[in-house]
Amino acid sequence: MRILIIGASGTIGKAVTAALSHENEVVTANHSSGDFQVDLGSRASVEALFEQAGEFDAIISTAGQAAFGALSQQTDADYQLALNNKLMGQIKLAQTGLKHLRPGGSITLTSGILSRHPVPGSASIAMANGALESYVRAAALEIHNARLNVVAPAFVKETMALMGMDSASGISAADTAKAYLLAVTGNAHGETLDVTDHL
Amino acid sequence: MRILIIGASGTIGKAVTAALSHENEVVTANHSSGDFQVDLGSRASVEALFEQAGEFDAIISTAGQAAFGALSQQTDADYQLALNNKLMGQIKLAQTGLKHLRPGGSITLTSGILSRHPVPGSASIAMANGALESYVRAAALEIHNARLNVVAPAFVKETMALMGMDSASGISAADTAKAYLLAVTGNAHGETLDVTDHL
Repeated sequence: MRILIIGASGTIGKAVTAALSHENEVVTANHSSGDFQVDLGSRASVEALFEQAGEFDAIISTAGQAAFGALSQQTDADYQLALNNKLMGQIKLAQTGLKHLRPGGSITLTSGILSRHPVPGSASIAMANGALESYVRAAALEIHNARLNVVAPAFVKETMALMGMDSASGISAADTAKAYLLAVTGNAHGETLDVTDHL
Repeated sequence: MRILIIGASGTIGKAVTAALSHENEVVTANHSSGDFQVDLGSRASVEALFEQAGEFDAIISTAGQAAFGALSQQTDADYQLALNNKLMGQIKLAQTGLKHLRPGGSITLTSGILSRHPVPGSASIAMANGALESYVRAAALEIHNARLNVVAPAFVKETMALMGMDSASGISAADTAKAYLLAVTGNAHGETLDVTDHL
């Protein structure tokens, strides 16, 4: 398969890229590195990416920005970052990607378990995650000849360690990547793949 | 209790108003009728509403615009309507309402079952509903001395009849109102009250 990974330079993106590179042609796109550069907040940038990068059997996004912050401190800009980048950035990627997908191909986006298992400070991130999961469930009803899913990762062990958190109970990026592989190679359509269900 | 109902002129809003008016002082706010007028898409309008309307024991929103439409025909404007009005309009209402709520009061927003049980044409509505439900779940973790919930109505029988749909299996607006009453009088916090669970 020819596979495009957007956000391939992130902790999860690297693990997904490593897991898929053995048997597939992987093309990477990041904000400022990789085979191509893309700004998820800009539809023109997303369209330019596909004009240059061509057609794919699978498109995976492990990208999308949103910010933690105390509820009382969250600004309109914080909500707009989550909505414009993590949510609508990935929706625009799916909309444009569908036009550059080979028959039977798949698109896999990224939300996160905070939509269903929030922690303090996660309101705007949880909002974007919940929106993505419901969007994918609804949009899949009108997408034929292609599959659309979203993976909901937990904090990965590597990130927890970097942040000085106790990472003993964390899930590694390599284990998280298994959910993306399942989304690409399986039959799921319109589903939220919770990484904790796919270890 | 002194209760503010935003969207009181809608089918569900009227039923909620009727159910609460016997034992409470109900103040209504709509886009162009009611005791006060408010434009959910504008933070200034939401703030002006509370400056004029005072303090409340309960704030209920049965308002919020979003449009049905085939996935392939949905425009950026359709997504922005759902995000700016139904989603962020109600979030701004909650943010501002918290400052005008008496101790122990409650705020109840409205999503809809399309987040979990979508139909074709509901992608942007489902997106906003899912976002609201995850936002409420996460935000509640940081809200003390007040309760925040969201009611997820199904299509109400009256609307189905108006649209020429078979309304035999529909839930009446009066039965839908029971979920709002439960949100106001019960102990729920951070919950999505699915009307089909509260008949």
